[in-house]
Amino acid sequence: MVEFMTGTTPRPPGARRTAATARQAGAVPVESLPRPVGTDRLDGPESAVTDVEGVSDGQDAAGILEQARRSFDPELRSAVASLPASMRRVARYHFGWEGADGTPTAGHAGKAIRPALVLTAAAALGGPRARAAAARAAAAVELVHNFTLLHDDVMDRDATRRHRPTVWSVFGDADAILAGDALQALALRMLAEDPHPAARAVAVRLASCVVELCAGQHADTALERRPPDQVALCEVLAMAEAKTGALIGCACAAGALYAGAGEDEVEALDAFGRQAGLAFQLIDDVIGIWGDPRRTGKPAGADLAARKKSLPVVAALTSGTPAAEELAELYARPHQEGEEERAALVVERAGGRDWAQSQAADRMARAVHELSRAVPDPAAAGGLLALAEFVTRRSS
Amino acid sequence: MVEFMTGTTPRPPGARRTAATARQAGAVPVESLPRPVGTDRLDGPESAVTDVEGVSDGQDAAGILEQARRSFDPELRSAVASLPASMRRVARYHFGWEGADGTPTAGHAGKAIRPALVLTAAAALGGPRARAAAARAAAAVELVHNFTLLHDDVMDRDATRRHRPTVWSVFGDADAILAGDALQALALRMLAEDPHPAARAVAVRLASCVVELCAGQHADTALERRPPDQVALCEVLAMAEAKTGALIGCACAAGALYAGAGEDEVEALDAFGRQAGLAFQLIDDVIGIWGDPRRTGKPAGADLAARKKSLPVVAALTSGTPAAEELAELYARPHQEGEEERAALVVERAGGRDWAQSQAADRMARAVHELSRAVPDPAAAGGLLALAEFVTRRSS
Repeated sequence: MVEFMTGTTPRPPGARRTAATARQAGAVPVESLPRPVGTDRLDGPESAVTDVEGVSDGQDAAGILEQARRSFDPELRSAVASLPASMRRVARYHFGWEGADGTPTAGHAGKAIRPALVLTAAAALGGPRARAAAARAAAAVELVHNFTLLHDDVMDRDATRRHRPTVWSVFGDADAILAGDALQALALRMLAEDPHPAARAVAVRLASCVVELCAGQHADTALERRPPDQVALCEVLAMAEAKTGALIGCACAAGALYAGAGEDEVEALDAFGRQAGLAFQLIDDVIGIWGDPRRTGKPAGADLAARKKSLPVVAALTSGTPAAEELAELYARPHQEGEEERAALVVERAGGRDWAQSQAADRMARAVHELSRAVPDPAAAGGLLALAEFVTRRSS
Repeated sequence: MVEFMTGTTPRPPGARRTAATARQAGAVPVESLPRPVGTDRLDGPESAVTDVEGVSDGQDAAGILEQARRSFDPELRSAVASLPASMRRVARYHFGWEGADGTPTAGHAGKAIRPALVLTAAAALGGPRARAAAARAAAAVELVHNFTLLHDDVMDRDATRRHRPTVWSVFGDADAILAGDALQALALRMLAEDPHPAARAVAVRLASCVVELCAGQHADTALERRPPDQVALCEVLAMAEAKTGALIGCACAAGALYAGAGEDEVEALDAFGRQAGLAFQLIDDVIGIWGDPRRTGKPAGADLAARKKSLPVVAALTSGTPAAEELAELYARPHQEGEEERAALVVERAGGRDWAQSQAADRMARAVHELSRAVPDPAAAGGLLALAEFVTRRSS
């Protein structure tokens, strides 16, 4: 699954916009939507971020994330500390708390957007008390996210995660699989141990979400193996929703459940998270093609060179345009050095870039609409909107 | 993790012994303890079993297993049916319900000892009502067991499981990892959905057990990589308890919890399962060296040829005898064809075989003692004793 940007990003002054303004303007914060030119890949290096726009309601996404970290981090660390030494070592490395040799490190890996969404959703619907009660659930969601990262990296043979060698590449496949298994178990144990009346429903939801994440990862690997002309756009969208949207939706729904919200609100917050997650994935795919390598930390057009069937690519391939045929021919043969620029141009001419951007705008609009259903008070919704915009923001 | 024998084993008439007799005889049913000569490997072919001894209290292990299957199978199948198509297919193949091409098969894979232990423990302490209530928990335990099998086979590169190609060898590593992940999630979801007051405590226990199983599998792979002279016997015993004993103990404890048993009884049943599981592992290791290939379906001395650091081998290596030195030299170089018999003799001369047999007897004695603490009524304890003897029985 996709990882959000790492490191702490101080929000620059100015450029604020309230949630209320956003919704009054027609529920689509289009002006704050990402534009791919010069954007930083969302999981790119911290230093790439020079400007953040669209933070809502006086609530600062970086501040929310920092505050969230203070709430769930003790729960997360104590769960990991309960592991037997062999698993603990691997988990602590994965979370960025230790080096491969066990030396403590100052930082932590990942932005931890998902636990922040749990806490912010709980606060939006239930105030500070619900937020405090949801700390364990927030840690459980983060454990599940990290279990899937550990396993996905094994399957995808990804060598780097959060700018560090992946667990399997340091400790071997077996330890990466076992540590992932243990983190899933820890997550569901935390919820089983939580006496809060919402914990059971959240456990059911989180376990169902794991199944959906697995199906999404399965679809991803299956789609990547299929010939490009046998991949439908709706399939890639469904895959992205299962692989990226589901857990973001589940995080928001979990927060709502800890706030004692009704079924409609819970489902609306789930839909909010899913749509925001899809918007994020669309933008991430756009950046994977047109992102500035100085900001993304990856060579330009890396996804095209790898013949990745990302959302803009499949939109282009299925566009029925002459450029689609050209792209199909290009994807049918192995990548040749130096052709990235031409490939990117072909995807753009076939409408892949425009489609992805307007889809992202559409998904964000739907997300904001769902949010307004669940949390009508703009002030209360501000934190969630700030986080959603944070993960789909541009920095040009 | 080790899989118990597959297929249905009709119990021959005669040779019965009651639980009461067993305990009266000093809590050690030594006469029913396995002797390695000519024993069948417990996960060996069904046809290997020609004689079963030591079934207790008029309760027939095969009958108990069959009856258990009728109780938990609907829950298991409905959980698997709830999976998305991609995961369902892999799971149904793994459980032996379908061929690799999706063709339904008549059978099912594995003896399903663990869910039978859940149900039999519930019945022993809470009667038929507790047994009926524990059906979901029994299915959850079986799901966890099978999730670990799926993942272990990937890590160990085992090509065969229950006489069929393993999932990773048919569907690839990714699907085996994902299906395992999904089965763990299903197991813990079933318990979260179970309104029974014991479900929460069982979920905590089962999740903790998963962590222990992971640590056990980690220890196993780590021990196999270490030089033979750097492996202590207590380490291998601890590994076997984590890898094999923990889930068998957890199954028994889960049944006790569904019967509303007190903490002492729950812990005693956990200890019963752990000790019986260790006895099973010791016997399985003995059979791995001295088992009759016509019965085990594996070449004689296969574990020695693979330089496996099984319990009798490590006992021999650490015996301080001259034969230990001979064995160490043998293990220091690659296996040569035809030397299995000599190697087996060296392990035996170093006392590895005697040690493993007396350890197994000791563990069964402890198991029976723990059982009598938890279930003082011999009639009520009969089913659990029959199952424990079934998994550690001899057939010579």
